[in-house]
Amino acid sequence: MARPIKRIRYNPRRHSVGNVGESPGTIDIPAGALKPLITMASYNETDLIEDNKKDIQEVFDQIRKLKDHTHWIRIRGLGDAELIKAIGAHFHINSLVLEDITNIHQRPKFDEYDNYVFLVSRLIHFTEEAELINNQFSALIKGNVILTFEESHEECFEAVNRRLAGGKGIIRKAGPAYMAYALTDTILDRYFVLLARVGDALDDVEDRLYGQDANKDIMYQTQQLKRTLIIVQRASWPERDKINDMIRTDNALISDEVKTYLKDAYDHCIQIMDLIENYKEITSNMLDIYLSMVSNRMNEIMKVLTIISVIFIPLTFVAGIYGMNFSRVDPATNKVMPANMPELYSPHGYVYALAVMFLIAIFQVIFFWKKGWFSKL
Amino acid sequence: MARPIKRIRYNPRRHSVGNVGESPGTIDIPAGALKPLITMASYNETDLIEDNKKDIQEVFDQIRKLKDHTHWIRIRGLGDAELIKAIGAHFHINSLVLEDITNIHQRPKFDEYDNYVFLVSRLIHFTEEAELINNQFSALIKGNVILTFEESHEECFEAVNRRLAGGKGIIRKAGPAYMAYALTDTILDRYFVLLARVGDALDDVEDRLYGQDANKDIMYQTQQLKRTLIIVQRASWPERDKINDMIRTDNALISDEVKTYLKDAYDHCIQIMDLIENYKEITSNMLDIYLSMVSNRMNEIMKVLTIISVIFIPLTFVAGIYGMNFSRVDPATNKVMPANMPELYSPHGYVYALAVMFLIAIFQVIFFWKKGWFSKL
Amino acid sequence: MARPIKRIRYNPRRHSVGNVGESPGTIDIPAGALKPLITMASYNETDLIEDNKKDIQEVFDQIRKLKDHTHWIRIRGLGDAELIKAIGAHFHINSLVLEDITNIHQRPKFDEYDNYVFLVSRLIHFTEEAELINNQFSALIKGNVILTFEESHEECFEAVNRRLAGGKGIIRKAGPAYMAYALTDTILDRYFVLLARVGDALDDVEDRLYGQDANKDIMYQTQQLKRTLIIVQRASWPERDKINDMIRTDNALISDEVKTYLKDAYDHCIQIMDLIENYKEITSNMLDIYLSMVSNRMNEIMKVLTIISVIFIPLTFVAGIYGMNFSRVDPATNKVMPANMPELYSPHGYVYALAVMFLIAIFQVIFFWKKGWFSKL
Amino acid sequence: MARPIKRIRYNPRRHSVGNVGESPGTIDIPAGALKPLITMASYNETDLIEDNKKDIQEVFDQIRKLKDHTHWIRIRGLGDAELIKAIGAHFHINSLVLEDITNIHQRPKFDEYDNYVFLVSRLIHFTEEAELINNQFSALIKGNVILTFEESHEECFEAVNRRLAGGKGIIRKAGPAYMAYALTDTILDRYFVLLARVGDALDDVEDRLYGQDANKDIMYQTQQLKRTLIIVQRASWPERDKINDMIRTDNALISDEVKTYLKDAYDHCIQIMDLIENYKEITSNMLDIYLSMVSNRMNEIMKVLTIISVIFIPLTFVAGIYGMNFSRVDPATNKVMPANMPELYSPHGYVYALAVMFLIAIFQVIFFWKKGWFSKL
Amino acid sequence: MARPIKRIRYNPRRHSVGNVGESPGTIDIPAGALKPLITMASYNETDLIEDNKKDIQEVFDQIRKLKDHTHWIRIRGLGDAELIKAIGAHFHINSLVLEDITNIHQRPKFDEYDNYVFLVSRLIHFTEEAELINNQFSALIKGNVILTFEESHEECFEAVNRRLAGGKGIIRKAGPAYMAYALTDTILDRYFVLLARVGDALDDVEDRLYGQDANKDIMYQTQQLKRTLIIVQRASWPERDKINDMIRTDNALISDEVKTYLKDAYDHCIQIMDLIENYKEITSNMLDIYLSMVSNRMNEIMKVLTIISVIFIPLTFVAGIYGMNFSRVDPATNKVMPANMPELYSPHGYVYALAVMFLIAIFQVIFFWKKGWFSKL
Repeated sequence: MARPIKRIRYNPRRHSVGNVGESPGTIDIPAGALKPLITMASYNETDLIEDNKKDIQEVFDQIRKLKDHTHWIRIRGLGDAELIKAIGAHFHINSLVLEDITNIHQRPKFDEYDNYVFLVSRLIHFTEEAELINNQFSALIKGNVILTFEESHEECFEAVNRRLAGGKGIIRKAGPAYMAYALTDTILDRYFVLLARVGDALDDVEDRLYGQDANKDIMYQTQQLKRTLIIVQRASWPERDKINDMIRTDNALISDEVKTYLKDAYDHCIQIMDLIENYKEITSNMLDIYLSMVSNRMNEIMKVLTIISVIFIPLTFVAGIYGMNFSRVDPATNKVMPANMPELYSPHGYVYALAVMFLIAIFQVIFFWKKGWFSKL
Repeated sequence: MARPIKRIRYNPRRHSVGNVGESPGTIDIPAGALKPLITMASYNETDLIEDNKKDIQEVFDQIRKLKDHTHWIRIRGLGDAELIKAIGAHFHINSLVLEDITNIHQRPKFDEYDNYVFLVSRLIHFTEEAELINNQFSALIKGNVILTFEESHEECFEAVNRRLAGGKGIIRKAGPAYMAYALTDTILDRYFVLLARVGDALDDVEDRLYGQDANKDIMYQTQQLKRTLIIVQRASWPERDKINDMIRTDNALISDEVKTYLKDAYDHCIQIMDLIENYKEITSNMLDIYLSMVSNRMNEIMKVLTIISVIFIPLTFVAGIYGMNFSRVDPATNKVMPANMPELYSPHGYVYALAVMFLIAIFQVIFFWKKGWFSKL
Repeated sequence: MARPIKRIRYNPRRHSVGNVGESPGTIDIPAGALKPLITMASYNETDLIEDNKKDIQEVFDQIRKLKDHTHWIRIRGLGDAELIKAIGAHFHINSLVLEDITNIHQRPKFDEYDNYVFLVSRLIHFTEEAELINNQFSALIKGNVILTFEESHEECFEAVNRRLAGGKGIIRKAGPAYMAYALTDTILDRYFVLLARVGDALDDVEDRLYGQDANKDIMYQTQQLKRTLIIVQRASWPERDKINDMIRTDNALISDEVKTYLKDAYDHCIQIMDLIENYKEITSNMLDIYLSMVSNRMNEIMKVLTIISVIFIPLTFVAGIYGMNFSRVDPATNKVMPANMPELYSPHGYVYALAVMFLIAIFQVIFFWKKGWFSKL
Repeated sequence: MARPIKRIRYNPRRHSVGNVGESPGTIDIPAGALKPLITMASYNETDLIEDNKKDIQEVFDQIRKLKDHTHWIRIRGLGDAELIKAIGAHFHINSLVLEDITNIHQRPKFDEYDNYVFLVSRLIHFTEEAELINNQFSALIKGNVILTFEESHEECFEAVNRRLAGGKGIIRKAGPAYMAYALTDTILDRYFVLLARVGDALDDVEDRLYGQDANKDIMYQTQQLKRTLIIVQRASWPERDKINDMIRTDNALISDEVKTYLKDAYDHCIQIMDLIENYKEITSNMLDIYLSMVSNRMNEIMKVLTIISVIFIPLTFVAGIYGMNFSRVDPATNKVMPANMPELYSPHGYVYALAVMFLIAIFQVIFFWKKGWFSKL
Repeated sequence: MARPIKRIRYNPRRHSVGNVGESPGTIDIPAGALKPLITMASYNETDLIEDNKKDIQEVFDQIRKLKDHTHWIRIRGLGDAELIKAIGAHFHINSLVLEDITNIHQRPKFDEYDNYVFLVSRLIHFTEEAELINNQFSALIKGNVILTFEESHEECFEAVNRRLAGGKGIIRKAGPAYMAYALTDTILDRYFVLLARVGDALDDVEDRLYGQDANKDIMYQTQQLKRTLIIVQRASWPERDKINDMIRTDNALISDEVKTYLKDAYDHCIQIMDLIENYKEITSNMLDIYLSMVSNRMNEIMKVLTIISVIFIPLTFVAGIYGMNFSRVDPATNKVMPANMPELYSPHGYVYALAVMFLIAIFQVIFFWKKGWFSKL
């Protein structure tokens, strides 16, 4: 993994809080929302018209005109409340749903209404700068139309476009619900990509953990990885419920054929959760190992240093002894006092003293070595 | 966040305990309860009468008079047992419900009775002095009347009043159950405000954690935030169940239209719980990081200090050696004893001694540096 | 809280273990059981006869005589197997139930039999000596009779007696099941009293924790509080199930009116469990804070002491240097050796040496202060 | 508790692993299985024939002969595959059941087959050498016959035999299912005995914990107790499910009368699980307290030792100062240098120096005492 | 256990991530997949034809030819997409199933389709080099055919082959579902073998833990064992659900006879999960014990070293005292200053000084010993 992951803030853009008690269903454009880009793909088994639209009215016209086509209308950027309202008015969408489209902190869910359904997913990925993005993806399915809403202008569904253009597979035949499945599955595939990157980073960190350059940065990186995992987990958990709701619904908009594919997506979702669970367990283990390693290295250092001190302390004491000034001669009588430090007046006293110190040092080293205090714990 | 959060006591006002075995349904005014303020709003699609009432009888009169209106009667302050009893008698409310209104430690719940329903929520917010308030809000719905009971005189539902006055939306048409929904949703919105504040505080603490001025106060602040989260969690958990009960009931007082809105409130509740879960996880992580940082800084200090000691210990020993007083001359014979400390009598002994000490110090520094003991762990 | 809580033993009186494989339904008087005191209250809406009985036969006679009354027979003290057997024989009670009455380690439960029901609760409270008592309370309801069995002679249901004597409320009308409810609710009220005391103790401990006199005793007290909470939790958990079983039964002995009251008791039970959960979380937090405080104080002390050592170590080294005895004069030639310790022969050498030491000390203090090592962590 | 518990191995005898992919239903005698002892008790209300059998054919003969009796056939020791096969052939038992009888690592379970049922329990107890034994007990009930299989020759059901011989109670009337209940309940009673012993051991360890002789052995003992609890927990958990399955079955072999007794056994099982939960919590607490005590004692020692060092360090420095050899006389000019160590030439310099040292020591002691560093943390 | 377990990577081969949004049902050969080996066993009660096939067409021919046989077709090695497609085309298998066969990170599952079923298991075992292998095993059952897919060429089901060749048991009669059971049970048996090895390794590590050579390697080994357990747990958890799904299905492909055997496999699965739970608990305990042991040993060393230092510090101080140079004679007046260090001029001053030091040392040793600081904590 080339770049280390950036500091992850859980709450970069918060639910806007200035509107306590506001009437429900109010469309509340998030701060910094982009101007919408409208793309439309109208297709059936034989035909595919794909272009950008200047205006939502063009979209409505095309839907009216091409009655046998499936229409996929992509709104990328949520910065235009009027557009959302126009869509709501044209398709007779409940205002609570419109609110949810722009309230970009929804959990994945599948809501059924009289003749349309509404889905939310989380589009999570790393930017090239290793910043974690957690965008909202929502979709409305009504009749032969699927509207999708994304926060950014970025192209996240290129593969789906390619399959659409290729004209192979059932994508051109199976209607808007299959398109919803295809998009959801692509989102799940992106989770796998993200988790693969997390897995690489974990291997990386683990290699460094068992290697020589284990340092504080490991902890920070592991924390960031853990946070990434928590975010993906909180997105995949309700995603599973959502897909399950879609499988179990008896809504005519979700055909049995699509449900077979959704079961596959469900399996992917379980695999993602499983992988996250695994990775979280590794992360916790790595933090524990790191902390115990730090503590061990610290202990090792302290032990060595303390042993050095202890070896020198008795030696210094002996030197202190022979630094005492007990007088050999009584100054009053000038008589020699033979009991006072006779060692100092022995011809080889100094040599003996050095030898004693050396022996003390050797003895201590052997003692500590015997006790196993030099061995790594 | 301008002010740090005050010390949070879990149990500032306790369930009164002097009345063990008391007859159930006894109305027990909490200590320090405020004198009730009675406000009444009678409204229908075209009409809105909103005023304070001196007396509960005025309220009853108005209900009798305006049969086509929805009546919202707000009792702010629970300090008058007679008032509660009068309401109970007039609406034929079970005495257990009356007891619950004044027993201000109820968990959020939705109780159904023969021809009325009873709801409890927790009104949690910070005061301007950053003190956490956890008040009880309860509501009774019967026929076209909704009675709400709050502990404080503070205006918490201004936004609802504004929507009522505005006359827009379905608030004027959808009856008392919608009003109950509007109030509940406003309460949930206040949770978001509170959690946004907690989020700010967490970011704040985290910045300090990774910054230079990490100190003990971090721990205290984190504890307070954790407690706030626990209190909100314990309020939002049963709130979810309560809203769910309201959605699933087949009671005629809760119309299907209101249930659609309640599903929205349910989503908000789940979001709140999710956010709390996230914040709690961050809080725990921050405590762990803080503790490991403190321990690391402490270890760092101890290590540096120990290394300094260890460098000086052999040097001091060498100085001790040459402070010994082994005699160069045998005092008895006055003969020179050449083995005794010849270094002392060498013309450059002192310089050599200093040089040896210097070399020992250099050697140790290099040794410790090679071992990586100067690097941060 | 005046007295600290006494050491709590989980297992003061154990299930008697000398009778492995014994025939079920054997009445096994617990060691130290008190002699039974028989009290009887026969009441209906207009009438109340309350007195002690010398003999269980008097009780049976009174039941036979007063057919329109509800009879509450209290047996306080379980020390008489014959009494239990006589009751069993008279009311045709299964021997397993009789065994449960004297086997004083039952969990709260509600057992239904052909024409009677059996309830168990735990009567937990502190004695005046701050010792925790965990007694068994059981009750049998059959027809118009409720028999209750308590372990101690202590009066725990005075409030119920007062309500009975007062003649107000539905207590005189609603039969033995209401009496069972009233007693259960009184037991739950006692839990609130107990928890209030625990709450006070927790506040107390917490004040000391943040105060100056934090000491080892905090840990012991917190442990005792935790144990108290565990015991109450283990009693209230099955109590909730028991009350729920009573609410959901279709047994004619529990009337719908009583069930309304039981729902209230159920709410109380949930509140108790909630409070316990809160308190346990506080307790754990306090232990963690205490441990980290102890560790911090210890670290603080060690740091200060180590800094003092380190400041003196270089000074002592300098003093050691100038305590060396390098000879100024070559004893053989009597020539001055100017390289040997010229400082000693400088007129202000001593003053300079002291100044150098002082500067070293100052430098170190500034260095450590700059590094922030004097600040509290 | 006289003997400390022996080291508990979780896995003393392992599932034999040499037969991967072996045909199911293969009877696989466990290593070291004992030779079977066959005992038979044939009884009805009036009659009881109890004796050992040399041969399983004798058993079959007796069953054929005494059609009105209930037959309890005990096989103690599983070392004879032919015997198991003979029983299987005679009673038409599924080979998978026969495999389970000898595969001695079954969890407690209740399996129903066409006209017979199969039960497994775990027989756990301490030997006199304080070794934990975890044997398998299985039983087959078919018609009026109950066959029980035990691993050891030890008599575990003496109390049941005594009740059978006594002829009291319903044991002689209620058929083989009651016998199965009686044996199961005896097994549960043994759990109580075992847990009482664990409880004693825990009290013992706790007394030592708060006493003077807390040492490393506490940790080892607590570990062993914890393991015992885990083993009993893993046995009692499925035991509860098993008894519950027996209560809820509509198999004619388990009569309603027996089910009443099984409910009692179920309660016992819940009590056991509750007790285990309590004990595990105590065990964890004790380990935590022990670890914090060890750490506190260690800290206490280090603190005292460090304070002693620190008190002496400045004193030693002062002594070092006056051990310096700054010359009072300039050797070149023989002039006195009054700035060099005038203290040494003061008439009471020594006394003053000692006094200064004494004051420094006193000051430090007071300072540390004021800071509260001598008080226990 | 001869070899220590190799470092286990959770994620050696990752879900291929280059195909985000790819059309579902695309067969994606895993990197490094082996060339398929096709083996076929066609059998009925009397007949068994077992041979390798060069070509899948030979297989199809044989199926067509032998209509009364059960056909077990083993594909070992997944490296040929065309083969998978040919099988899919011949048996009319959904492309999602074909994708699952080659996507080797499936969790165990049981999927039912119109006239066929699909099963996945994990084949986990240690290689001879103690490396953990986690391969995918999948099976398709349709009519009288079972197709199994394995990743490696290794023979894992020799025992099943032997039973097939032996012709005993029901394996030859009970059709492809029984074969699926037999293979699943063999896989579960391999788990027991693996867990037995883990159990041996745990005993081994535990012996070293309580023995003398406890070192860092213990931690690494325990980590590897823990990871092994996590991997097996994550495989056996869904395996249990899978088997349960097979038991509860009403699909005609799974006969009631096979379901009886599957219940046995279910029990094995529960035993495996139980064993894993046990082992994980032991692993955690061992890590805790190891860490506390390391910490204790470290503390022990530090304590001994500190005690040695402290004993010498006062002695060195005394030596320092008598190393001071207070002048006995006033150099100005040449008068003796009797207060200055009279001890130095006492005839036995040196002896006394040594004696004092000795006494101080003895006193300290006794003091520390009395305090119990020499005893092991």
